[in-house]
Amino acid sequence: VGETELTLISEATVARLAAGSVLNVRKPYLVTPSAAELAKKKRIQIKEIAGGTRPAAGEAPQEAPARDELAGRIESTLLDAAATPDQVRALCREAVEVGFAGVCVNPIFVPVAAEALAGSQARVITVCGFPLGANRSEIKAAEARASEAQGAAEIDMVMPVGLLKAGTLVDVKRDVEAVRQALTQAGTVLKAIIEAPLLSDEEKVAACVLAAEAGADYVKSGTGFAGPATTADVALMRQAIGDRVEVKAAGGIRTRAQAEALIAAGASRIGTSSAAAVVSHSQP
Amino acid sequence: VGETELTLISEATVARLAAGSVLNVRKPYLVTPSAAELAKKKRIQIKEIAGGTRPAAGEAPQEAPARDELAGRIESTLLDAAATPDQVRALCREAVEVGFAGVCVNPIFVPVAAEALAGSQARVITVCGFPLGANRSEIKAAEARASEAQGAAEIDMVMPVGLLKAGTLVDVKRDVEAVRQALTQAGTVLKAIIEAPLLSDEEKVAACVLAAEAGADYVKSGTGFAGPATTADVALMRQAIGDRVEVKAAGGIRTRAQAEALIAAGASRIGTSSAAAVVSHSQP
Repeated sequence: VGETELTLISEATVARLAAGSVLNVRKPYLVTPSAAELAKKKRIQIKEIAGGTRPAAGEAPQEAPARDELAGRIESTLLDAAATPDQVRALCREAVEVGFAGVCVNPIFVPVAAEALAGSQARVITVCGFPLGANRSEIKAAEARASEAQGAAEIDMVMPVGLLKAGTLVDVKRDVEAVRQALTQAGTVLKAIIEAPLLSDEEKVAACVLAAEAGADYVKSGTGFAGPATTADVALMRQAIGDRVEVKAAGGIRTRAQAEALIAAGASRIGTSSAAAVVSHSQP
Repeated sequence: VGETELTLISEATVARLAAGSVLNVRKPYLVTPSAAELAKKKRIQIKEIAGGTRPAAGEAPQEAPARDELAGRIESTLLDAAATPDQVRALCREAVEVGFAGVCVNPIFVPVAAEALAGSQARVITVCGFPLGANRSEIKAAEARASEAQGAAEIDMVMPVGLLKAGTLVDVKRDVEAVRQALTQAGTVLKAIIEAPLLSDEEKVAACVLAAEAGADYVKSGTGFAGPATTADVALMRQAIGDRVEVKAAGGIRTRAQAEALIAAGASRIGTSSAAAVVSHSQP
């Protein structure tokens, strides 16, 4: 595993990218014949870049076997308005020590986290249109692109909940597509936050299907601002999208028991502001 | 009552004010002997000013504004993630009927509000970098510019609270400047949200001064996400910036009494999601 993990550039990967863009990939990788053909047609340059170990979307955690398996599924999160650069650095140090999947921070702290996590397995994760999702698609796209350029490997965008409620589903899908298309690197993971606590079950399913169709790699249960993640929501989301995309649970997760229940319900990743407490064994 | 209401400058009024400050008062007023003595000791100048209805910071409520007068100070606000275009239209109709200063909505609804309020006195107000303020200055600038282009007359931006906490005040000022410079139309109002519930008094004053220096027209107490507006915060903000800029109070304002107290403390505008209830006379 790790450095020898093969990155697959499929037709679907290339289909997501904007015409004329550059796809940066790290060795070892494999471009399928149909992907190469589509890339040629869309004038997309597949460019090999040096270094790094960023795994592809949906890949299993890769930390040392001695590490807690749960830690590898956790995104240690700090999205408080009042968070400082020093707090972000401390969170990054802890993430590397414990072996968390990554650190999720606000956009202005992407450079700080990228520097602090350089050379480690922990990924830089940030949010986009957060937490209301009610800003313009082009602003979300610009924000996501800037985050990717500064080192974010994963982007958690908030879907436009009000447009979903209003039933203008084409606009909802286009919003996610706009962000997907703004991302230019092959392995950049896009998560679409559906904000489940505000939705009916029917709306939750619609949001997941739209996000998957628009090219999201993950659907994420919530921002944490509207309510907690539930196992029922995670199970419904997993049912809605099958194995096409992954599920991230987030919102009010503070104990190992909660995290394990959400993983059992179908979540691949856990977002929490209490990451250290969640992996602690000294709790029930 | 009303214009003939006497303003009492008591010892308690003066005790609240900073040494060396100026207390602006309108006729008719009365300064108690002990207040005059304390003012002298604290080098506080009691200055009589003409016209207007805005009382000085820390002053007791002068009068209960008539219904229309209060309505004209209220920004009817709907920033829920799940708000729909129809809900925005209904809010706009109500704002025109009641005579609110304007309607404050999320960026994607600026075109909806602009259409609904066309030809009326009510202004289109929107937010920027809301509610965390922890995204990039250039993204805030782009968002504000897009809102202005689509018809927003006022932009309520969130200042970078974490950078203020970290003490990198130059970056805080530049953030507000970036948004100010992005606005191209004379008359577009910029409000800088300091998020007072997360700040120390010293940080509140620093945020107000930086916002004023960066060209904000208003300082605004909060987003509503971190806690309610308080009269103490509004008085402190007014004291910090004097008459250079205006003060908007927002966060948890649900009654006429609250709104009137905040206006008495120095707020020129009130942001509330309960605008109709606030102007109603059928409450205590």
